[in-house]
Amino acid sequence: MLLLEQRIATEGKNLGDGILKVDSFINHQVDAGLMMACGVEFGNFFANTGANKILTCEISGIAPALMTGWQLKVPIVYARKTKPVTMPDIVFMTTAPSHTKRRDVEIMASPEYLRPDDTVLIIDDFLATGMTILALVRIAHAAGCKVVGIGTLVEKTFEHGRDALLHLNIPVHALARIKSMANGKIEFEPN
Amino acid sequence: MLLLEQRIATEGKNLGDGILKVDSFINHQVDAGLMMACGVEFGNFFANTGANKILTCEISGIAPALMTGWQLKVPIVYARKTKPVTMPDIVFMTTAPSHTKRRDVEIMASPEYLRPDDTVLIIDDFLATGMTILALVRIAHAAGCKVVGIGTLVEKTFEHGRDALLHLNIPVHALARIKSMANGKIEFEPN
Repeated sequence: MLLLEQRIATEGKNLGDGILKVDSFINHQVDAGLMMACGVEFGNFFANTGANKILTCEISGIAPALMTGWQLKVPIVYARKTKPVTMPDIVFMTTAPSHTKRRDVEIMASPEYLRPDDTVLIIDDFLATGMTILALVRIAHAAGCKVVGIGTLVEKTFEHGRDALLHLNIPVHALARIKSMANGKIEFEPN
Repeated sequence: MLLLEQRIATEGKNLGDGILKVDSFINHQVDAGLMMACGVEFGNFFANTGANKILTCEISGIAPALMTGWQLKVPIVYARKTKPVTMPDIVFMTTAPSHTKRRDVEIMASPEYLRPDDTVLIIDDFLATGMTILALVRIAHAAGCKVVGIGTLVEKTFEHGRDALLHLNIPVHALARIKSMANGKIEFEPN
């Protein structure tokens, strides 16, 4: 998706160690129009998957998931990293690495909103090693849901997360694919 | 806003101690269509404030803020509760009570995205005591921004947060106003 690639090329900052700062339009400040464009793209791509729910992870996955939910006319569920008092004591919980916090975090979802008859599309901001996406898949599977697709705004192909998702045998769609962040540069995969 | 009141009346749960559980459409599962309707309402109400940016607080404020940003064609900034490695070491930071976590939490925003020439509209999910909204106001003022309006999905008028915001002398708009949660009920203010 050229629009997103152009924003990353002009505003993204390569902080080293594979960390891409996109805080001016995705991760702290959020460009609502760009997110809607991404939601339209995901909505078109996954239109025929039969998904009746979108699963994402707080915090940065919420914006693209919400716009995709708007397009597909389905609700979103965001896995939480801390348990609010409104959440029941029986939850689906697993761990996922937080790249920007440099440690593992717990993520959880309530059985109230992930049901065995749900067909789930996973949307998140980044696909890097795939560990966070796989954690969302584990949560969906623990709930008995069928997972029918995975969409991310950005994929860092040099971290090979797509390979870790291959066994799921479902479509994986990334809107901007970064081949390399070596030497302070940001190089995209050819489209 | 009748649509939101009806959802609260049918799906909201009064957990006691003034805690309103709206996890099935706002706080864990999110109804994208409802959030868009709320964004349209905020967009209409605040259309002439001149806001060029929306400020909210992670996590539950993001959905209504994003839809309002879409309507007003302005970016949103969400104050963060933990500092990611992508955020600079000089930040605007204050504390705010977390009602659902029963403790104070730090919230922070980067000077990169709140500038002295910004005109800010604050959008959040709840107005209760007003302490979280006031924390967002302090962050905006610390950045030198002008705050021109406050919008929340739900106001619990029995916690008198609106009084705490009076001195700001700016419009405060809540889409559903709850008068009482006594005796396990949820009673709305007359429209």
